[in-house]
Amino acid sequence: MKMLFEYNWQVRNDWYRWCEDVPEEELLKVRTGGVGGILNTLFHIVDVEWSWIRAMQGKSDFQEKFEGYSSLSKVRALDAAFKEEVLAFVETWDPSLEDRLFKEQLEDGRDVVDSWGEIMRHVIAHEIHHVGQLSLWAREVGKKPVSANLIGRGLRG
Amino acid sequence: MKMLFEYNWQVRNDWYRWCEDVPEEELLKVRTGGVGGILNTLFHIVDVEWSWIRAMQGKSDFQEKFEGYSSLSKVRALDAAFKEEVLAFVETWDPSLEDRLFKEQLEDGRDVVDSWGEIMRHVIAHEIHHVGQLSLWAREVGKKPVSANLIGRGLRG
Repeated sequence: MKMLFEYNWQVRNDWYRWCEDVPEEELLKVRTGGVGGILNTLFHIVDVEWSWIRAMQGKSDFQEKFEGYSSLSKVRALDAAFKEEVLAFVETWDPSLEDRLFKEQLEDGRDVVDSWGEIMRHVIAHEIHHVGQLSLWAREVGKKPVSANLIGRGLRG
Repeated sequence: MKMLFEYNWQVRNDWYRWCEDVPEEELLKVRTGGVGGILNTLFHIVDVEWSWIRAMQGKSDFQEKFEGYSSLSKVRALDAAFKEEVLAFVETWDPSLEDRLFKEQLEDGRDVVDSWGEIMRHVIAHEIHHVGQLSLWAREVGKKPVSANLIGRGLRG
């Protein structure tokens, strides 16, 4: 579990560095699919990761919109602010937490139950999925995307 | 580990069903980024998953090209043929295998070592990343992409 979070954090940092050489108008440009843009995607990943970690612990959600964070430095600062809490949760993750249940009511009124193990993997897959979208938009910008390889990053313990 | 493979297999099957309603020329159309097309991506995912599972066990690689599998039914048949071996490996996966080492020589002559735990997660992330690309190409086709959600699929044990 920790290895995949660590992978995501490395890849995300690689994307922040990738963004440094790209004009801000390209980072903010509205694009088709996903959440509609490069920086918006990075903001969304940070938001969703933190919000789920908070939700499992019964803490309040993040309700702010991208409009308040629409620069690379602001997204990085938000990421850094959230990281401490996420890191603490992931580092103390224990297989005994796998089967804890999280209950919520959807907007349509249905009650749903997910295990913490499902939610942790949902968060992992969520980031990788959106980063796959970034890799195509990178080509629109005319710049080689960040490597998605997990091997070769020194992630084993 | 098994939950993320199971997630990938469900999502991949969802994409096969998604493809059923899409003209073959759209599935084969050359697109920018990734491996260059929708069906080519599904073939690549199947190829890479099986090849890594085989490689860890010291078995021969898959060397065939997409040109021999350029229809939805052929990719599905290849997937079905490979699935049995992949499923057996994943179902008997045990944490004691995490730290086994896999050594290979890259094309540039460098020797690299990866643990089986890294390789398994590399395979998982590889598929999710490429599926993220499919989700954008789906919009080019004008069709809503398959859901990437892991929660809500009944994946907990």
